[in-house]
Amino acid sequence: MFNVAVLGYGTVGSGVVKVINDNNQVLKKFSGEEINVKYVLDLRDFPGDPVEKILVHDYEAILADDDVKCVVEVMGGVEPANKFVRQAIEKGKSVCTSNKELVARYGAEILQLAKDNNVAFLFEASVGGGIPVIRSINESLTADNFDSIAGILNGTTNYMLTKMSNEDLTFDEVLKDAQDKGYAERNPEADVEGYDACRKIAILTSLICGQQVDFEDISTEGITGITKQDIYYSKKLGLPIKLLGLMKKENDKVYAMVAPFMLENDHCLRNVDGVYNAVSLHGDMLGDVMLYGQGAGSLPTASAVVSDVVEIAKNNSKNIPIKWAKEKVALGDITTFKARYFVRVEGEGQSDKLRKTFENACFAPQLTGETAFVTATAFSEKEIKEKLDGYSVLNLIRIAE
Amino acid sequence: MFNVAVLGYGTVGSGVVKVINDNNQVLKKFSGEEINVKYVLDLRDFPGDPVEKILVHDYEAILADDDVKCVVEVMGGVEPANKFVRQAIEKGKSVCTSNKELVARYGAEILQLAKDNNVAFLFEASVGGGIPVIRSINESLTADNFDSIAGILNGTTNYMLTKMSNEDLTFDEVLKDAQDKGYAERNPEADVEGYDACRKIAILTSLICGQQVDFEDISTEGITGITKQDIYYSKKLGLPIKLLGLMKKENDKVYAMVAPFMLENDHCLRNVDGVYNAVSLHGDMLGDVMLYGQGAGSLPTASAVVSDVVEIAKNNSKNIPIKWAKEKVALGDITTFKARYFVRVEGEGQSDKLRKTFENACFAPQLTGETAFVTATAFSEKEIKEKLDGYSVLNLIRIAE
Repeated sequence: MFNVAVLGYGTVGSGVVKVINDNNQVLKKFSGEEINVKYVLDLRDFPGDPVEKILVHDYEAILADDDVKCVVEVMGGVEPANKFVRQAIEKGKSVCTSNKELVARYGAEILQLAKDNNVAFLFEASVGGGIPVIRSINESLTADNFDSIAGILNGTTNYMLTKMSNEDLTFDEVLKDAQDKGYAERNPEADVEGYDACRKIAILTSLICGQQVDFEDISTEGITGITKQDIYYSKKLGLPIKLLGLMKKENDKVYAMVAPFMLENDHCLRNVDGVYNAVSLHGDMLGDVMLYGQGAGSLPTASAVVSDVVEIAKNNSKNIPIKWAKEKVALGDITTFKARYFVRVEGEGQSDKLRKTFENACFAPQLTGETAFVTATAFSEKEIKEKLDGYSVLNLIRIAE
Repeated sequence: MFNVAVLGYGTVGSGVVKVINDNNQVLKKFSGEEINVKYVLDLRDFPGDPVEKILVHDYEAILADDDVKCVVEVMGGVEPANKFVRQAIEKGKSVCTSNKELVARYGAEILQLAKDNNVAFLFEASVGGGIPVIRSINESLTADNFDSIAGILNGTTNYMLTKMSNEDLTFDEVLKDAQDKGYAERNPEADVEGYDACRKIAILTSLICGQQVDFEDISTEGITGITKQDIYYSKKLGLPIKLLGLMKKENDKVYAMVAPFMLENDHCLRNVDGVYNAVSLHGDMLGDVMLYGQGAGSLPTASAVVSDVVEIAKNNSKNIPIKWAKEKVALGDITTFKARYFVRVEGEGQSDKLRKTFENACFAPQLTGETAFVTATAFSEKEIKEKLDGYSVLNLIRIAE
């Protein structure tokens, strides 16, 4: 019997309890032991819910119980999750979590603490929900140097962009729809401003580099600036707009960013629609690899969390090495990073003039009152802004090849 | 220093030596040890190749050397690979292999032997080349019951079908092109008749079931029957034709098959083109997960093989449990398995008559001399053949939803 305590009985926590109960035989097959939820910690009561019997309000009860080998942190937010996780590890308990804020901020530190205490700290569900991306990076993709990651890492914004495109709706219209359906929070900032995707690409980049990438250092732009007009052009050009988390290594520099991109014809993420997420990586031996699945939702996320519990049980709760040192990666200056651009400027019929500045630019079928085109060559942000000096720029969206 | 011996210096073997030499720092980061190729076994000589210094012709030299902790079998074929692998394991050496014939036929037996000798037997590269599908099943997707697998498991046939569709070529024309490019063998039977895909879906199904699935029991149909006409309709209907390896659990029965399918609009494999492979799985908690990458080629395959070496080194060459028992899975009778069908029958203008038998059938824009349609409901093979009694059937292709 391998006893776990689940911290938080919200969307993910209730999913974790369900997965452990419903799929007990599967877990036993892989871990060799019966997995049992001994406690659920939550401040709330759940009258009538079977969880009542194992519900505790005081974390000390869990910390004090040596039978609990693994703590499942699915409360979210940095504190008190951070404190609880460290306390568990110091008590000799392994921890797994779906908490991307916690992992992005303190991943390296907590991994070191786990190593010092010879317990495991796993976080498969913190990126890409049910997509097995973290374990793939740590256990499978171990023979390559990876020079790029591109990820659709946020289901809410991908749902919104897909719906804007399929149904010709505005940002505000699809935001309301996503909120009504429960895909977006009442305060949607973390999703639509790209903060959620930023934490996830920070975690992936840290793992690929084996060193700390601070999410605060990552240039982050959300989808609030994407208009019906942008979507119109994206459809005419056949270049769907996606919010990407991106890492690229170029000339020994590591660049990381979150921004909306238009995706070229052969880009392997261009068909990832709706609430699905996907991560593609490019290795020097493997070439392109892509992992796709549900990036959020109670059960897919819970399944990933529970796969961590299985891994911990299988390893008798001993340390599982993950390379993520505290030393910071010096990120390249993103304003020097070059990409082709989709450009919209005010005023009709400016293509002749623009063609002189942007050789071989591809002009889209135009909407009234503006001129839109895609550059044939790549520019840094600084360069393109200089070239567009004197024009009233309506939007600039990078092209992902 | 973790010493390995590579059996076979062909396409994959030379890739393995290159990956271990070129990416030694990456391997060390993950395994904690320097990986060293101490021997390469091949019957041939390679004058002038740096491998000469470590080349041996006699396997006994490798077996007798206790410094060799891991044998990398990349010769292909059942014998003598099978004998060599078992000898290595009995000598206390771990083994990894890219050999799908060997793994499909003897996977369960060799895993038991490895367990008995407390060494590892890994085979990541045997399915999907560089796609991390085997380790994902064994280490990541461990909290779900999976009720279906669909895979594009053979790069050669996928390249051929993509080219037939993109360039309006016949099967014979694209086969010649694939042979000229080195994607297809001079004797292309294993690829085009689906035998290669069959072994791969047998391995995946065995792992998902935790029990032996004999590849001889899997109904296997290749792509030799796919004509220019089929491709014409597939394009008109927007249903690309792909050779799928398929597993489905229905009513406690496991069905497995390899056959060409037309893929519905929202099928997550429909955009997998060219030499790429992909595997999608459906779990009761995760929903759909898909893994995509290069299914063949020297370096992608070698990278997967070397990731097994890293895993073995990390585990000090001790046994890594994989659930695959010798007891056979009783496969369901594939002729009772139901699917919607694309149907072509001889003779023009038969749609009125056919509509009486096939309610709500969708008729394609017709070619001269025949009538083609897609059924609205699912039929077993037996049922559809009965319903088409009296017609001269030109082709039947199942639809994958």
